[in-house]
Amino acid sequence: MNQTSTSSPPELAPLKVAMLGCGTVGTQVARLITQSGDDLRERIGRPIELVGIAVRDAIKQRDGIDPQLFTTDALGLVTRGDLDVVVELIGGIEEVRPLVLAAIESGASVVTANKALLAADADTLSQAADKAGVDLYYEAAVAGAIPIVRPLRESLVGDEIITVMGIVNGTTNYILDKMCTTGADFDETLAEAQALGYAEADPTADVEGYDAAAKAAILASLAFHTRVRAADVYREGITRIAAQDIRQARVNGCVVKLLAIASSLPDGKVSVRVHPAMVPNSHPLASVSGAYNAVFVESREAGRLMFLGPGAGGAPTASAVMGDLVTVGRNRVRGVAARGHNVYAHRPIASMGDVHTRYAVSAEVADEPGVLAAVASCFAEHGVSLQTVDQELGASTDHPTATIQVTTHQANEADVQACVDELGLRSFIHGQVRVLRVEGN
Amino acid sequence: MNQTSTSSPPELAPLKVAMLGCGTVGTQVARLITQSGDDLRERIGRPIELVGIAVRDAIKQRDGIDPQLFTTDALGLVTRGDLDVVVELIGGIEEVRPLVLAAIESGASVVTANKALLAADADTLSQAADKAGVDLYYEAAVAGAIPIVRPLRESLVGDEIITVMGIVNGTTNYILDKMCTTGADFDETLAEAQALGYAEADPTADVEGYDAAAKAAILASLAFHTRVRAADVYREGITRIAAQDIRQARVNGCVVKLLAIASSLPDGKVSVRVHPAMVPNSHPLASVSGAYNAVFVESREAGRLMFLGPGAGGAPTASAVMGDLVTVGRNRVRGVAARGHNVYAHRPIASMGDVHTRYAVSAEVADEPGVLAAVASCFAEHGVSLQTVDQELGASTDHPTATIQVTTHQANEADVQACVDELGLRSFIHGQVRVLRVEGN
Repeated sequence: MNQTSTSSPPELAPLKVAMLGCGTVGTQVARLITQSGDDLRERIGRPIELVGIAVRDAIKQRDGIDPQLFTTDALGLVTRGDLDVVVELIGGIEEVRPLVLAAIESGASVVTANKALLAADADTLSQAADKAGVDLYYEAAVAGAIPIVRPLRESLVGDEIITVMGIVNGTTNYILDKMCTTGADFDETLAEAQALGYAEADPTADVEGYDAAAKAAILASLAFHTRVRAADVYREGITRIAAQDIRQARVNGCVVKLLAIASSLPDGKVSVRVHPAMVPNSHPLASVSGAYNAVFVESREAGRLMFLGPGAGGAPTASAVMGDLVTVGRNRVRGVAARGHNVYAHRPIASMGDVHTRYAVSAEVADEPGVLAAVASCFAEHGVSLQTVDQELGASTDHPTATIQVTTHQANEADVQACVDELGLRSFIHGQVRVLRVEGN
Repeated sequence: MNQTSTSSPPELAPLKVAMLGCGTVGTQVARLITQSGDDLRERIGRPIELVGIAVRDAIKQRDGIDPQLFTTDALGLVTRGDLDVVVELIGGIEEVRPLVLAAIESGASVVTANKALLAADADTLSQAADKAGVDLYYEAAVAGAIPIVRPLRESLVGDEIITVMGIVNGTTNYILDKMCTTGADFDETLAEAQALGYAEADPTADVEGYDAAAKAAILASLAFHTRVRAADVYREGITRIAAQDIRQARVNGCVVKLLAIASSLPDGKVSVRVHPAMVPNSHPLASVSGAYNAVFVESREAGRLMFLGPGAGGAPTASAVMGDLVTVGRNRVRGVAARGHNVYAHRPIASMGDVHTRYAVSAEVADEPGVLAAVASCFAEHGVSLQTVDQELGASTDHPTATIQVTTHQANEADVQACVDELGLRSFIHGQVRVLRVEGN
């Protein structure tokens, strides 16, 4: 009974992976785990095995996925106790938080693409992961396939980041692009995007900037090592962008983009905001078109960097998930976990009124002597220095009007808003005073 | 004597760092370690201490660096036995290899910016690091501040990379840019670049493509998990690029760039090459100007990604070094090391003749009937399909000549070269047949 076995070395125990959700991204992740088994084993150092997928409808056939993997018991799946990694691809917050926490408490590392959950609860999740000694990775949560989380978390971690500015929502980028090409207005372009499947039936999360705000919160937390939640992000969507704003941008040598901006202010505060802005054609973000995403980073030492790639879609997002899965797998093989999200700098969030940037302000005005001077004086009284002033006469001769447009030098948001509010009360202004920030010099 | 001490928790032992070399990059790294101590402690989880710097001249003053840190005994420094990390910034191969290996064998992790050493000896270094259980990181070795090593090593490690194509040498990019702007020839532009400090007195490593070839080898090894050394890389520099090539590129809607290209061929081979090429203006690499670097990656799942940033310089390169230093420090705190360079796919290196790409071929020819047909036939006989054929008459009426230019569809390099060699023998060809590959569709 004391015989020593001389058999060949035992096959390494596989890395056991469970998935929550099996939609566009999940299907691709399941395919890659199955298809790339040999490469993944070499890259991780152990074989990988997909042991279960929690779905709402376990009966529905999904191409190329073993139907026996499906279960409707998500909680049972993540708490079975032998999992190495749980890949969360359901999305949303309330339904998913307890599942992710249960997975972590059961000893599984978590890979997630869930920007909303992270932007709401990164602290809770990160602390739970640190306590359980497991990993929490989320490259796919921001800008799809573009490696941006890892570069911020590791590559630039010895540098001091000043600004992160990104086009992180493909739907709005597609709509603004189309408006620019066709000259059409927002409502018309949205309807077309919906018909083509580029925008959801309920487009609120995209067009009102909620999706971009969640990503901005994640980017800001990583860049500045401080806690930023989606609720901390100043947010304006693109629903009020009109064809005339796009035209005005073109006159200024700019395009209109929905930007997510996180910046470190000289007073130590952090400003995080999502809003449409004019971007000069010469800026690398200006040429990012369609469903592409891009993130521009400026740091003290590295200078200006840009990361560009597909911002969404099943396969690109799955690529980011798989990168995390291999990284987490490698950590498991070595019996370690990465540290959590390294929040140590408790920096206050700046209010939007604290922001300094440039502005393009336009309005239809009465074509009367002294109007341009009155407009210029109003800016001067509010301490806003102008860079350009243009006045273009209207076509009608019955009610002579002109369109006046000014662009400012760097100015304080609160000062500009006060000036715009005051201009709105003047009798020579016809209709609305339109304001767009100008970003990226 | 059994009393339990109730003192406050002991100060954590600092991470001990030694540096080899203190030039442009080293000075910046020393500054950052000293200046950013508080942030680095939070990010690493332990304080960081620079304990020594090996230099050739220990007497020379270096701004802001404690002169007591300097030593000329590099081997003594790296083998003192208590080091956590050695940062190698000397460069070169023979002098440095034994120092890096001694550091590793003494238990120190290594962070290096030394592309030449890695492109020659990555296997040796990586195996030594694995054996000693220490880290080997080298983000700064390719494309300066641009995070590209870590994205390939981790973010895209669950994907299948098809091509990596980069502008990875700032000097040649500056020279080609200038040639494009001024219309001047290579020699004149190089002399100007040398006068301005953008090119070395001995510019061989840059203009002959050796620097880019080392980087291409590193990128290819990471992308394809296979061993690629600098000696495996096909290499052509930019010294033969003439003003007429730049003009011809412009006619084709292209610019000329020195590219480092690593691609996975359908037959399983890996092709790695450095040469000048025409790049269409519409390609994102075309607008990468001056001292900027950019790396374009195409993968099966993620699709097309691009990484852009400063490719050289003290502070940008120091940013990349510092990111590695923090990562290695975090690993030390957890008592682990990352796996080495994960070479498991022993893929053969394709010869240049195996490559398929597009070509622009031009020559001065006699302005006689039948020449265009003869040129076209020659391509046809070699199985090369043409996309465009242009013939432009020369100005002289005494010796009527024309410039003929063809662009090909995707064609085999060996076929194109055989065709060009044959054309060179024809009597109607005056002077040299000029060939430039066309990359990036």
